Amino acid sequence: MSLKATAEAPANLAFVKYWGKQDSDLRIPTNNSISVNLSKAKTITSVEFDSTLNEDQLSVTNRDIPLESDFSNRVFRHLDRMRSLAGINQKAIVHTQNTFPTGVGIASSASGFAALTIAACSALGLDLTEKELSEMARLGSGSACRSIPDGFTEWIAADINNSSYAVQIAPADHWDLNIVTVVVSKQAKQLSSTYGHSLAMASPFFKARLESLPVRLETVRSAILGRDFDTFGRETEMEAISFHSIAMTSPIQNPGSWISGAYYWLPESLELILSVQQWRGSGLGVYFTLDAGPTVHLICLHKDLDRVISAVHEVESSRSDRKWDILINDPAMGAHLIAGDDLE
Amino acid sequence: MSLKATAEAPANLAFVKYWGKQDSDLRIPTNNSISVNLSKAKTITSVEFDSTLNEDQLSVTNRDIPLESDFSNRVFRHLDRMRSLAGINQKAIVHTQNTFPTGVGIASSASGFAALTIAACSALGLDLTEKELSEMARLGSGSACRSIPDGFTEWIAADINNSSYAVQIAPADHWDLNIVTVVVSKQAKQLSSTYGHSLAMASPFFKARLESLPVRLETVRSAILGRDFDTFGRETEMEAISFHSIAMTSPIQNPGSWISGAYYWLPESLELILSVQQWRGSGLGVYFTLDAGPTVHLICLHKDLDRVISAVHEVESSRSDRKWDILINDPAMGAHLIAGDDLE
Repeated sequence: MSLKATAEAPANLAFVKYWGKQDSDLRIPTNNSISVNLSKAKTITSVEFDSTLNEDQLSVTNRDIPLESDFSNRVFRHLDRMRSLAGINQKAIVHTQNTFPTGVGIASSASGFAALTIAACSALGLDLTEKELSEMARLGSGSACRSIPDGFTEWIAADINNSSYAVQIAPADHWDLNIVTVVVSKQAKQLSSTYGHSLAMASPFFKARLESLPVRLETVRSAILGRDFDTFGRETEMEAISFHSIAMTSPIQNPGSWISGAYYWLPESLELILSVQQWRGSGLGVYFTLDAGPTVHLICLHKDLDRVISAVHEVESSRSDRKWDILINDPAMGAHLIAGDDLE
Repeated sequence: MSLKATAEAPANLAFVKYWGKQDSDLRIPTNNSISVNLSKAKTITSVEFDSTLNEDQLSVTNRDIPLESDFSNRVFRHLDRMRSLAGINQKAIVHTQNTFPTGVGIASSASGFAALTIAACSALGLDLTEKELSEMARLGSGSACRSIPDGFTEWIAADINNSSYAVQIAPADHWDLNIVTVVVSKQAKQLSSTYGHSLAMASPFFKARLESLPVRLETVRSAILGRDFDTFGRETEMEAISFHSIAMTSPIQNPGSWISGAYYWLPESLELILSVQQWRGSGLGVYFTLDAGPTVHLICLHKDLDRVISAVHEVESSRSDRKWDILINDPAMGAHLIAGDDLE
């Protein structure tokens, strides 16, 4: 019997951010977050359990920066969780590839651990509910839980194990939004999200942020359901700045190389942030958000997509020494099994 | 009898910022602030009261951007305050000039209203104490009160009129700091400081900032007195980011051109902020601060000045399309009378 399966999972973009953990081992966040799955940023992962293997193996295709040193172990520990649940002890070969650059502010660990969870659970014959799959994905990488349901999702923080998972707010075809993801730099960021999370509570503004979030979550959730683009865009943009303000006011106390905050922006990110303000001033309906990296995500209604793309190209071409990768995302379905030969 | 005098006053750079007002008419701030006078950013102002004049006149030399529309009236209202105190009704001719670009994050209103206050009070024969002069300057432009005493000063917020003024923490020659002021753009900022102040309390983080300031003020004051450069630099840098986080999380609710925050930074400001982190990582003792504009102020001990200047030039020359103005400031004396013919 072959214990093999392949799954595809989208990265997701948070409109209300996950930043700060109640429990780092269980990856339980301090606050709910809301996101959408991205159609052009996917991970495809196959997992094959094999009784003849002596140890787990991981192979990564199309990766443009080196793996973090402990990444393989993180994958193998995640396999352990599912093996334990299935009562199967076989080691596995994992093949994985991303369709997008890693470490630049698109959460490749979200798509990666969502795909791994779906593929491994299927290969092991585990018949889990969406809630259980989302919880399992969360244990691998927190925001991976949001890549399990389709479309627009909300991750419920909760405060006890096995009750923190993502639920769908609306399906992918609910709203004709586009997310224009502008990868202004492919250099891997200096500071991992995991490390940034651990600093968050040192910010003097962290508590005030937490207190403001219930209202923001309600506003964003309602705006998605009611397709109220301007309310949605405004809250999303203010939330991005709130999140980066927390990061930038969390100093990094490395002896000898003290850094005054977690700076995930680059000058070109700020150039786009300021451009967005001007574009709106001239009547273009567009808002931005950024995750923990320099990549800027521009959010617009489909009717304005061409104008947004032109506006981005104009900024890009104002300097001859740069070439940005631009991904045009639709809201996407969540993680799902695919035929194994889709993997290159 | 000639009622004429000429004064020179420095702009000042805040290490702990003034952002938010308890009373906008009286320009009483929500918190104490700490600054140093800048030797290379001065305003020279002459005031001549003349019984033959029918109205006040203002002439500005060397100004590279247009005056704000109500600036003349703000100057004339300030003259009224001093005329009223002196019991003199003559109108005046005011000549003023700055030695530095305006509207780019160096507080020209601070040096301007400090110089105006000293010159006009002298011309009117008013014999005021330093405290009274500082209070008077504050009524013209809040941070002008900090340009009255010599050297390093602290503006006491207080909460009743005529008790908010600046006092000296240490004289200019107390500490051999240099402030390398990098003017990355001479374009006037889109958003005045006065308007920014009025938005500050809308930030969800404003209250948390106020609560954190007493400890920061004590730390910065003690670090100046004890010449503890790293403590001073770290607090100053974190404070700059705290202030900009407040500004950026204060949305601007203009109908039709909603802006998600008060962005005073430009991409090149961020480029220098990130460079400073790297320079420190390689052992160079340098910290940054920014006021409400894109200009970046680099703070170092005099022994490291040449290395800091070289490092700035290296970043500047990494792109051929830019040329920055760089001012090398020492801590300076406060506003004082000078011979009238020093004015061009």
